[in-house]
Formats: sequence, C-alpha cells, structure tokens
Amino acid sequence: MEFTPINQDILKQIISITGEERTFYKQEDIERYSHDETEDLIFHPEVVALPESAEEVSALVELCNEHQIPITPRGAGTGLSGGALPIHGGLVICMERMNKLIEIDERNLQATLEPGVITENLIDAVAEKGLLYPVDPASKGSCFIGGNVAHGSGGPQVVKYGTIREYILNLEVVLPSGEIIWTGANTLKFSSGYNLTQLMIGSEGTLGIVTKVVVKLIPKPKENILMLASFKSNEAACEAVSRIFMAGQTPSSLEFMERKGVEWVIKYDQIAFTLVDGIEAFLLIEVNGDSMDELFLQCEQINIVLEENDCQDVLLADTSAQKEALWNMRRTMAVSVKSNSVYKEEDTVVPRAELPKLIKGIKEIGARYGFESVCYGHAGDGNLHVNIIKENMSDEDWNHKLDDGIKEIFELTVNLGGTLSGEHGIGYVQKDYMPLKFNATHIALMHGIKNVFDPKGIMNPGKMFNSPA
Amino acid sequence: MEFTPINQDILKQIISITGEERTFYKQEDIERYSHDETEDLIFHPEVVALPESAEEVSALVELCNEHQIPITPRGAGTGLSGGALPIHGGLVICMERMNKLIEIDERNLQATLEPGVITENLIDAVAEKGLLYPVDPASKGSCFIGGNVAHGSGGPQVVKYGTIREYILNLEVVLPSGEIIWTGANTLKFSSGYNLTQLMIGSEGTLGIVTKVVVKLIPKPKENILMLASFKSNEAACEAVSRIFMAGQTPSSLEFMERKGVEWVIKYDQIAFTLVDGIEAFLLIEVNGDSMDELFLQCEQINIVLEENDCQDVLLADTSAQKEALWNMRRTMAVSVKSNSVYKEEDTVVPRAELPKLIKGIKEIGARYGFESVCYGHAGDGNLHVNIIKENMSDEDWNHKLDDGIKEIFELTVNLGGTLSGEHGIGYVQKDYMPLKFNATHIALMHGIKNVFDPKGIMNPGKMFNSPA
Repeated sequence: MEFTPINQDILKQIISITGEERTFYKQEDIERYSHDETEDLIFHPEVVALPESAEEVSALVELCNEHQIPITPRGAGTGLSGGALPIHGGLVICMERMNKLIEIDERNLQATLEPGVITENLIDAVAEKGLLYPVDPASKGSCFIGGNVAHGSGGPQVVKYGTIREYILNLEVVLPSGEIIWTGANTLKFSSGYNLTQLMIGSEGTLGIVTKVVVKLIPKPKENILMLASFKSNEAACEAVSRIFMAGQTPSSLEFMERKGVEWVIKYDQIAFTLVDGIEAFLLIEVNGDSMDELFLQCEQINIVLEENDCQDVLLADTSAQKEALWNMRRTMAVSVKSNSVYKEEDTVVPRAELPKLIKGIKEIGARYGFESVCYGHAGDGNLHVNIIKENMSDEDWNHKLDDGIKEIFELTVNLGGTLSGEHGIGYVQKDYMPLKFNATHIALMHGIKNVFDPKGIMNPGKMFNSPA
Repeated sequence: MEFTPINQDILKQIISITGEERTFYKQEDIERYSHDETEDLIFHPEVVALPESAEEVSALVELCNEHQIPITPRGAGTGLSGGALPIHGGLVICMERMNKLIEIDERNLQATLEPGVITENLIDAVAEKGLLYPVDPASKGSCFIGGNVAHGSGGPQVVKYGTIREYILNLEVVLPSGEIIWTGANTLKFSSGYNLTQLMIGSEGTLGIVTKVVVKLIPKPKENILMLASFKSNEAACEAVSRIFMAGQTPSSLEFMERKGVEWVIKYDQIAFTLVDGIEAFLLIEVNGDSMDELFLQCEQINIVLEENDCQDVLLADTSAQKEALWNMRRTMAVSVKSNSVYKEEDTVVPRAELPKLIKGIKEIGARYGFESVCYGHAGDGNLHVNIIKENMSDEDWNHKLDDGIKEIFELTVNLGGTLSGEHGIGYVQKDYMPLKFNATHIALMHGIKNVFDPKGIMNPGKMFNSPA
C-alpha cells in the first residue's frame, strides 16, 4: 500500500477544516499523539487534527481518501494493543474535542453521546439519575467511550450484565469515503439487514470513525457487597470461579489477582494491605441488587462454594472506603505492574472452567522461556490479562526468544477453546498471531469486509490482520 | 442473476450426497418445503436435501456453487418474513435432520447443538440442570435454533436477559464456497478481529449455513410471579410500559395484547376468559428471581406504577395452571389471528417510550386505508407485532392500496427512531421497504458484505435487500 505524505497544500486544506488551533504539525505538539499505553512503542503522525463535529470528521476523511493519506482514529490513547499508533504516519484524527454527553433520555433509558466522552463521566452522569451503564474498563477514568466501542471493551461487570455489544444500540459513523451513516436504530432489538452496529463494535477504527454513540441504560441496583477471598494457589482460586456459577450464583464482578500483582500495588502505590504468608491468589467478588437480605443470602451461598474450594479466608468490605480501597487495588494493578518494568500484556480469554489449565500453562511456559508474568483479570468471563515482565530477562532473550513464548501462550489459549483477545483488541501488537486462531479463509473474509468499507485502505492501516497474499 | 436449473446429472450428484431417502424431488414430497408461516406465499423448490452433517452441507453447497444453483437454507419453516421461501426454485437445504443436542457443558454453562434442535427442547434440557436459555420466541415449540440465529429471534424474556446476540457464542458455518469455519470462540468475550458470529446472527441465511451453535447458559431463577393488567386504551397500556422501567423495575417479561387479539383467542382457541366491557388492552407482566419476598416487593412497586397509569385491574396468576393459561393466550394469539383471515404481519420496533405514538399512529393509518389490525408483542422492548387483517377489505384494496398503508406504518416507525423488524427479519416480504430505513450507501455496504461471502449470489438469493443498480 503506497501512501501519500502530507504536503503543505494538503496541510493547508486540513487547517481549513479544523483551524490552526485544532491542527497540530509541530514536533512538540504531535508528541503526545505518537504513543498509547501499549508497551514503549512510538510512531509519529505527520499531522493531528481535533475535529468538533461529524461534518469536520467527514471533511478530513474525504480529503485523506482523495489523496491516499493514512488515517489513525484516536480516542484517549489508553489502548493496550496499539490500535491508536499511527504506524504509517499520516493524519491522526483525535476525538478528544467531541466530548459532549448530548442527551440522557430517561423515558427510554438511553443516552446519546459523542465518542470523546470519558467512560466514567457517562457512568457518573447516569448514576445521578439512578441508572447504570455497566461497561466499566479499569481505565474508565480516562478512556473514551469511542475507544471502548472500537475495542469491544469490557470491565468487571460484564460477567453479570453482558458485553458492550448489549449496550451499544446505534452508531453514527463517518465511512472511509467521508459519507456519514447511522448503523442501526435506537431500539433494543434490530433484525433489519446485516447488523453494522455490531460489525463496527470491535473493528478497531479500521472501518470508519464513530462520531455519535447511543447506549442502553438499566436501573442501577441500590446495594452491593464486596468480598476478597484468598487462596493458596492460582489454580485453586481459578477453580473456585466456575464453581460459583455452577452453584447458581452470578456475582456482579468476579476478579482474579495474583499475589505478585498485589505485591506490586503495595510497593508502588503505598496501599496499606497485609499479605499473609502462603497466600498466592485472590478473588474479588461483588454481588449487587436492591435488597441486602437477598445479597447476604447470595454471599452465604458463595461462601459455601469458597470453603469447598480451599479458600483460606474471606474479607468482607464493610464500608464504602474499604470497598473503594479493594477496587483501587484491582484497578491500579495494570499501571503498577507496567510503570516499573518493560512489559508485554496479553489479553487471553478461555471458557471459564478452563482458567486453571490456562494459568498453570502460562506459568510453565514462563518457566521454560525464563520470563516472569503477573496475571489478573475478569475471571468470571474467563478473561485473564497476562503481563509478561522483563525484569531480569536479557535483552537478547526479550527481543528474540519471547515471541515464541507468547506464541505458545496463544496456542494454549486457542487449544482450550479461547481466543487471542477478550477486550483489548488485536491492534498492532497481536496481529501477527491472528493465524494461530483463524485460517486463511477466515482472514480473507475479514479482509474482504475491510475492502468493502475502505477500498483504498486508508483507515487505520496495518492493524488487526495482515492482508492476505 | 442467471441460475442453472437442476438437471438429472446434478440431481444424481445431490443424491450421491444425501441419498435417495433424504433427497426429495417429487411434487408430493417437496410440497411442505414450498411455504413457511409467511402469509399465503408458495414457491416450489426443484429439489430438497436433508443433510445430516456439516460435511454433507458442505458438499451440497460446493456443488451448487460450481453450477450456479440457488440454495435456500431452511429450519422449521416457522418464519414470518419469507426467509425460507425458495423464490428462485433450486435446492432447499433443510436442517431438520441435524437436530442433535451435542453437549450441555455444565462446567462452563454452555451448550453445543445442531441447528435443527427445536428451541423448546434446548430450553427444557438445560432447565433440567437448573439452567436457563432465555431466548424463547412464541414459536419455541416448533422453531429451530438455527432459524433463531438466522433471524436474530427474540421472545418475551429478552427484555430482562438481553437479545440472542448475547447468548450465541460461536457458530460453525458452511460458507457459500463450501468451506467450513467456526466464526469465533467458545468464550463470553471476543475482541479478536471482525466479529463474524455477530455478522451471521440476523443474516437470514444469505451468508452461509449454520451447522453448529454454541450457546451461553445462565442459572435459572427459581421463582416467578405473573400478572395481567387491564387498561381502557392501548395508549394507556403502552404508556405504563416505559413508566415501569423508569421506576427502576425490570420485569422478566412485559407483553402487550390488544383486546381484539384476546377476543380472537377466546373465539378460536376456546380459552375460558371473561373480557370486561371497556377494557381495550392488557399487559402481561412477569417478574422472576430466587426469592419470593423480593418478587412481591417488585410487584408492589410495579403495581404503584400501574395504578398511576390508569390500570383498571390486576389479575395475579396464583397457580402454575393459571400462569400457563395466560402465557398460552399470548403465545397462541399469532396463530389464532392468522388462521382465520388473510393477513400481513409487520414486526415494528421503536424506542420503548414511543409505543403509545406508534400504536395510535397505526390505528389512524388503518382507519384511513380501511384495514383492521391486531397488535401484540414484546412491549418491554418497544417491539410491536402488527397483524393487518383482510376481513372486509376488498381484494382490490388489499392487493393495491395496502402497500401504501404499510409503507406509512414503516415511515412512522422510522420517524419514531425505530426500524423495520425487531426479530422477524426482512426476508422476502419486507425487502422492498428497506430504503425507508437505509440509504443507498448503507444498502451498498450490505450488498458488498454479501458479495464477499457469496460472489456468485447463490445463498438465499432475493432476500433482505434488493441489489443496488
């Protein structure tokens, strides 16, 4: 794919759309758009534009389409698979100025918003009206709803409330041609032709740029209880996960944390928490609902399962401060682990009951290749984030041997019935692993779909999969 | 599109795949495959094959692809949009022999099954293990799970548990080339390339033939309460619907029935039910959960809303026989209405709070065009089935004026933020209305996707949309 560099004339045309103040091309201005939260990767765009309307996005895209200029759509830049990296330079279209929460429709339990709204801002705004938007990635305080749509993002509450696919009703999208469409309808059901809303979710900015989002909201439960259960081994904790569901219980969150993850949080975030000797793993279990009596009953049932599965201790968070502290531990784990070593993060997901085999296998692979890993994640969904830490690994091994180890992790994941990513996406850093899961026919279908939307290949090129030969 | 008739040589090749006993070509044998539940439409296939494995389906499809023979995939033939009608003749591939419930995986709360399993058989089999598969169309006693996937089918419980999209994890599909792929993974989350599982759901057999389905299961609630609320007007009943959700309540079902629908059921199904004068509409409201105390509390809250919204009376179903009788009334309504007049059914869906405007508008349009309609449906989802009854309408008006009336109904639906079908699909009978909702760009994208999967256009041709010029 041959792309055109952005020359002075094209730059002028971009400025004519987004103005001098919202168009960046100087080194110091584009710096912060040259990386996301993916490892230590840096790619510089030629120009960054900050549109304020779908019409401006459309004009930018049309211009790039005409001149064969690569576009990298960008949200908050919190992605972990490199989806927002402008690997071919070109134009970054960042949605940070399109951050209006347009309407909370309390009659229909829906909200309409721009893609640059921070996820937590949506969650808080609807909570004030007694409503719940349950898709809450760990990065909810900084990530954008548009990025969540692009990556099919999840979070702890998916296990009870369903994935983001259930909460995105309709999308306004600027297609690679510059045309603007709504993908569906503002309805809870849709059986009217191919579901382009669902196709856009998880398409990682390769099919178009989302400029408005309509989400479904539900009544917010009034009460919750949070428990921290501790185990002597990763496998015991993971085994308990599927047992809880088999006992008929559906927690609103069921998170797994390895001891080492907690150690890093204690060390780097100065969190006050006493780690008991011999405890290797934790489950953070939340139940919610409208009646405390009912929740206590649920907790009793869950406790029976925990006891049957070698749980050593259960800590009940009594106050909202305690709850916040425990959730904080889980949420800051990613940042703590990553801010203190070179790392690579994999986002494995398997059928829930295969978690014990997955984590055992990951540790065995690590032992063979000589890498440390810290695992945590949405165990209730079978979704385990695997942070591979460089620490004492030699540069030589890190740069040349590690890829084979990661390949083995993904092979194990796929063999257990799983897939390469549960919620982070494929992006730039996982795309070479796609053939481990999908055969050539399958990838050719994906490429064919890409080609229908974007025949010139300008929209987030070099992401998700390699073009078939 | 030019198709090849099935000659003696090709017929022999089909027989070599599915054998004499599972290959039909005589008039009396193909008769039952020439219609579904859509109006009084009849189209005869040339040949019907009943494969028993994905490999047989693949061989049939490969043969048809080679010779440009149109294929109509067929489930139980309960569809209401004509998706299973072989409008170009050719080969019907009916999945009725692929009816094995392969595995209920209690460790992972999943089941793997063939597409010819009757939906209720799946529901009953998992219920025995304390599990719930909540997608239960009114036709659940006869429809196939494969057809449910093809149409994005719903049912009363969608309102609480989410759509079929949340319960279909993975699909084995025979592509129009004859190749076999699995569309995703057996995981609760998937963010690994374009989601072909979601693309297949609701694609009405135009992109391939589903040969295995992996579904998600959840714990089955132990208790439920069913109420029948009566109202003096359709609008009052419909207004109460959104009010219930606004009050923070989420029933497990919230169905609307017009008086006339109940009259037809009483008349034609000899159901014992006393219709009170002045009552024009009903809401059938179910709540479920594990604690009766909790459910009674929910019912109290719902009752407060009902009283505030001019509800005349609430009947509480005390026994399981009473519950079954009320559900039976709702479920047989479609058949009662349809078995006694020529009819057309539209499957309108709007944002929930727009229901009062929708039903008012439908009646006004009916008055202007001189047609009667009977409305019922999944009001909690904003999904209203509109049965237009010929009764006293002249053949001339029915055949020539009615289309304009239906067009007006769909225009109203779209103007209220809705779409053409919530769960029945577009199929053969609604495809001409697609431009009312989707512009040329949108339909060209759908057509482009179709073309990627099925470049020869053999897979269920003439359904869902008309090819762009």
